[in-house]
Amino acid sequence: MLVVMQRSATQEQIDHVLSVIKEMGLTAHPLPGATRTAIGITGNTGAVDAQPLSVLPGVFDLIRVTKSYKLTSREMHPEDTVVQLPQARLGPGTFTVIAGPCSVESEAMIMHTAEALAERGIKLLRAGAFKPRTSPYSFQGLGLEGLKYLHKVRERFGLGIVTELMDLEHASAVEEVADLIQIGARNMQNYSLLRKVGQMKKPVMLKRGLSATLEEWLMAAEYVLSGGNFQVVLCERGVRTFADHTRNTLDLSIVPSIKKLSHLPIIVDPSHGTGKRDYVIPMGLAAMAAGADGLLVEVHPHPDRALSDGAQSISLPQLDLLLSKLKRLEGPLELKLV
Amino acid sequence: MLVVMQRSATQEQIDHVLSVIKEMGLTAHPLPGATRTAIGITGNTGAVDAQPLSVLPGVFDLIRVTKSYKLTSREMHPEDTVVQLPQARLGPGTFTVIAGPCSVESEAMIMHTAEALAERGIKLLRAGAFKPRTSPYSFQGLGLEGLKYLHKVRERFGLGIVTELMDLEHASAVEEVADLIQIGARNMQNYSLLRKVGQMKKPVMLKRGLSATLEEWLMAAEYVLSGGNFQVVLCERGVRTFADHTRNTLDLSIVPSIKKLSHLPIIVDPSHGTGKRDYVIPMGLAAMAAGADGLLVEVHPHPDRALSDGAQSISLPQLDLLLSKLKRLEGPLELKLV
Amino acid sequence: MLVVMQRSATQEQIDHVLSVIKEMGLTAHPLPGATRTAIGITGNTGAVDAQPLSVLPGVFDLIRVTKSYKLTSREMHPEDTVVQLPQARLGPGTFTVIAGPCSVESEAMIMHTAEALAERGIKLLRAGAFKPRTSPYSFQGLGLEGLKYLHKVRERFGLGIVTELMDLEHASAVEEVADLIQIGARNMQNYSLLRKVGQMKKPVMLKRGLSATLEEWLMAAEYVLSGGNFQVVLCERGVRTFADHTRNTLDLSIVPSIKKLSHLPIIVDPSHGTGKRDYVIPMGLAAMAAGADGLLVEVHPHPDRALSDGAQSISLPQLDLLLSKLKRLEGPLELKLV
Amino acid sequence: MLVVMQRSATQEQIDHVLSVIKEMGLTAHPLPGATRTAIGITGNTGAVDAQPLSVLPGVFDLIRVTKSYKLTSREMHPEDTVVQLPQARLGPGTFTVIAGPCSVESEAMIMHTAEALAERGIKLLRAGAFKPRTSPYSFQGLGLEGLKYLHKVRERFGLGIVTELMDLEHASAVEEVADLIQIGARNMQNYSLLRKVGQMKKPVMLKRGLSATLEEWLMAAEYVLSGGNFQVVLCERGVRTFADHTRNTLDLSIVPSIKKLSHLPIIVDPSHGTGKRDYVIPMGLAAMAAGADGLLVEVHPHPDRALSDGAQSISLPQLDLLLSKLKRLEGPLELKLV
Repeated sequence: MLVVMQRSATQEQIDHVLSVIKEMGLTAHPLPGATRTAIGITGNTGAVDAQPLSVLPGVFDLIRVTKSYKLTSREMHPEDTVVQLPQARLGPGTFTVIAGPCSVESEAMIMHTAEALAERGIKLLRAGAFKPRTSPYSFQGLGLEGLKYLHKVRERFGLGIVTELMDLEHASAVEEVADLIQIGARNMQNYSLLRKVGQMKKPVMLKRGLSATLEEWLMAAEYVLSGGNFQVVLCERGVRTFADHTRNTLDLSIVPSIKKLSHLPIIVDPSHGTGKRDYVIPMGLAAMAAGADGLLVEVHPHPDRALSDGAQSISLPQLDLLLSKLKRLEGPLELKLV
Repeated sequence: MLVVMQRSATQEQIDHVLSVIKEMGLTAHPLPGATRTAIGITGNTGAVDAQPLSVLPGVFDLIRVTKSYKLTSREMHPEDTVVQLPQARLGPGTFTVIAGPCSVESEAMIMHTAEALAERGIKLLRAGAFKPRTSPYSFQGLGLEGLKYLHKVRERFGLGIVTELMDLEHASAVEEVADLIQIGARNMQNYSLLRKVGQMKKPVMLKRGLSATLEEWLMAAEYVLSGGNFQVVLCERGVRTFADHTRNTLDLSIVPSIKKLSHLPIIVDPSHGTGKRDYVIPMGLAAMAAGADGLLVEVHPHPDRALSDGAQSISLPQLDLLLSKLKRLEGPLELKLV
Repeated sequence: MLVVMQRSATQEQIDHVLSVIKEMGLTAHPLPGATRTAIGITGNTGAVDAQPLSVLPGVFDLIRVTKSYKLTSREMHPEDTVVQLPQARLGPGTFTVIAGPCSVESEAMIMHTAEALAERGIKLLRAGAFKPRTSPYSFQGLGLEGLKYLHKVRERFGLGIVTELMDLEHASAVEEVADLIQIGARNMQNYSLLRKVGQMKKPVMLKRGLSATLEEWLMAAEYVLSGGNFQVVLCERGVRTFADHTRNTLDLSIVPSIKKLSHLPIIVDPSHGTGKRDYVIPMGLAAMAAGADGLLVEVHPHPDRALSDGAQSISLPQLDLLLSKLKRLEGPLELKLV
Repeated sequence: MLVVMQRSATQEQIDHVLSVIKEMGLTAHPLPGATRTAIGITGNTGAVDAQPLSVLPGVFDLIRVTKSYKLTSREMHPEDTVVQLPQARLGPGTFTVIAGPCSVESEAMIMHTAEALAERGIKLLRAGAFKPRTSPYSFQGLGLEGLKYLHKVRERFGLGIVTELMDLEHASAVEEVADLIQIGARNMQNYSLLRKVGQMKKPVMLKRGLSATLEEWLMAAEYVLSGGNFQVVLCERGVRTFADHTRNTLDLSIVPSIKKLSHLPIIVDPSHGTGKRDYVIPMGLAAMAAGADGLLVEVHPHPDRALSDGAQSISLPQLDLLLSKLKRLEGPLELKLV
């Protein structure tokens, strides 16, 4: 932490700030400059809230130096984390494609889709039984019945199940069926939910919130890790900006940024990230080239009849095209496509 | 809904779109233009997802006409809603100041603060027992113990209690103590929680999400109203933008916008909205002038010792100054300050 | 400037950074902490670009301490600047309403409007002769002919003229006619233009760019002041965000922020700031309450026949209503309405 | 254009809107629906400003159907445009790397850099003689002297010159030296400048403004094309959002969006797009995978001694690494690296 004093700050004001810092159990290092004084603070353990200093007389600004994330930080844990599921792994060296429809619409539909995905070598199926929808009047998912069908999918096709948990009420039901528990973008800062999955034994996929900074995202992951669950995969799915040519703005530069600052694997969701089917293939390829560990793509056997997110779902032939294009980049990018 | 065809769309493609619309049970109105054809759709009940049309061959764009919110819409309910609490009312003609510390820090502290607020004529005290914090290592609130102290505040000083509900687990405990249940910005799209408070008998204050559009905010309120609870107050608390001179960007123009499109009362939180104590008074006055129905302000007897959000809390003398300035605007703005 | 070293930085890396700082002619202050070292830098004159330090081995982050603006800073110039025009003043204690149509559409129209404004006590008329339009196919203004009409307005009604300068080519023509030269939002970082008006003798109104931070805005003003022209008025006109209920997001909290950090007067343009006529009055009142020094409002005798920006222009009866409401706030806010 | 009436709109109000549309010389198509009426408008030539309709009594909303860009639109010009320079081409099938330092710092430095780039097969060198800098106290470029050195670079090494034009004053000097005239992000809506380059015979590279929508960007290009200069290359260089892990947010999804809506080539600048050297390689690869026609990268022989933008410039060994990685993707992506 650095306290920057006003140019006009008196020695008395500086001394007062120094004494308050001392009272907080910290060490102050005055840095007199040509035009103003700054005061470095050391000895903090990270949990100290120094905001109150900002309002002391003569203080101009307060600058944070230490990042708040710890367990998620690469400084703490230099090696890459690999999230190991029974059916696949997420982490360096592999590029894992998770695919499936936005929601489980019926038993027949999910079985049909699962079979088609398994035939194409997909190892992880994503589909929502519980759906967070902007409107209370939209289809909200099949709920527990949907989970039952996902369980059948797992049994019959050996596919790993990726599905969303929306609340504490359905925590154990989802935990039982899922191989990878999805926390959606709207719940990225639902701390009760994060604490809950922090105590679970199943890996967690944490989507980035619509307006989450890198630090807030890692802090949300920190809730899960600090609960004891270290198996966390991050998923970039676009953020909200002024740009209106896509539904969200897919922020691929977060991929190398996360790789630099954290040890957690990160995948990219070009379906939600663009909201338009036509852009899923180019942005999926771009995500791979940017260094992501995998993709989450919405696939629907009949996108124009989907009960939700049809416009951003690709068809099975489009999935084939995506997979063949990814396959061509496997060697040049030194990744193994899964 | 309006389907805009490409300039190069063939008659066959247009006919296909027309037949798909018909299959959906809707009525299509072709609008041939000089350079392209558009197709108006009527007969929809609002819940229809027409996105799949966007990917039919020859379709250029899809334009939504009808807004999705219904119960929250002024078109449906032209008169202003008044949210009536035992201690005060929120709605047109009055300007209600809700004040209190970010969190209940101890029994002594909250009693002391409550007494000071009651002496100043404040009718509604806000304080968090459960605190959503970005870091798992920050103070998370006193929880049920905090609620107990808030109950005492209500008993002793007659103040109405405004406090946050974060999860289903503590729903009944919060419902029992609160006069106005706060749903925080991070939970604005926590639909399980919204559905829960939709079934409660206590009024709800719904804060705007950090990146929520007006429509998403009203749709979140729609979850509460559609559950049967019509006593909802909206609270603008700043949105996330690129601007860095304040913690968030307080979007006061949402006040007249909400007034135009909805019948629900709306208040403004200049404390979270700016994150800086010095701006609470000017922005509080501005909110009143913009037509808000009240303020939510963070007040702390000793802001520089606050366990959370000290930098944005005003002191009691600053509250006195704010109240006296609001009082001067009461007459000119034809509002009664409460 | 503060250089934050990685936790794993070696003593050798720290020493290298120290020596590079020394080579740059600056003084380094090492601050060893519990988990990492930071290095304070003093002696810089503000113009030094220390970014290269960020890529030295072992460096984690670089934190700027000193703000770059100087002449515009309140620290340098504690008293408020008053911009004095022949017809009115802009600065503390007064609240000045600048009004007029988006563009000069014809001689008859601007004369008619000017007369109506003068009758209402307006002292400064704004109208564009040169119009920056998003589309090359939109009406681009009457150009030099428009300036001629504005000159007549000044002669006949004694109104001060506020009009936009778009390029070097028309600099002297605009300077001759204008009492206050407007630099538009799109040209806020047109440095050739800023340097030009920095050499002029006429006051300048600098609109905030669509995505300008406070610091960038003050730096743009710094271009004008550093050229020798200290008569600068800032004008907030909304910024670009994700919010879609208004054309732009009017950022009123920049008003107290500018007042704190700079000595320059600041006015608010609720017409461009919201893009919707209905919100001009509430946001105009809010701007006054927030501490602005005046308003810039689009007024058109027949808004629905305006050649540009008709949707955000208020009519003359609406201007009367605005003025009467502002008048009522004059006393309580201790301002004199002009 | 579609006019959406309020649910409560009277037949009289609807008739009034119909008659106003007729007065405007357009054709109105009433679309009565279950809950409200909408009115389709045809016959417009694109230049009509229908905003005034939005304020007629009973009107709820106004929805634009036709996009405003024409000459830049793929609908008008289905084949991809190829921008042909003497040294290289920009367009489909090739991937062109433009490289060079942020600014011409001295004759020795630019000659040294040019030689190194030519040795590596680079065909186009970018370097600024005129530099738009946020601060008036920063290095502003060598100006005409810098252009002279660039001319020597062209003579000696046969490299094509890409350099920025900032104002009308230096238009002919820049036009003479440049093979590709850069219009910077801050000048994307400097319409006087756009009109000027629209009359030139040299190709133009138009960078995206910091907060420009796709439509505004294409409209800015439309200024150039409508002046008669069809040789325009677009350059994505990051937009401004709340995200703070990079200097700007590189919006790669604009690449397939532009490809879909326009025929103009588009390249990507990962240096400004991220502001951090470490991210230039991953984002450069991602841009290629996303379908861009080339890159603009900042290269400096000694990045930590650069007079501007050192932190985002890559070194020559890093350029070698980038080129070798791009080379590996050439075949799989069916592009020829230039």
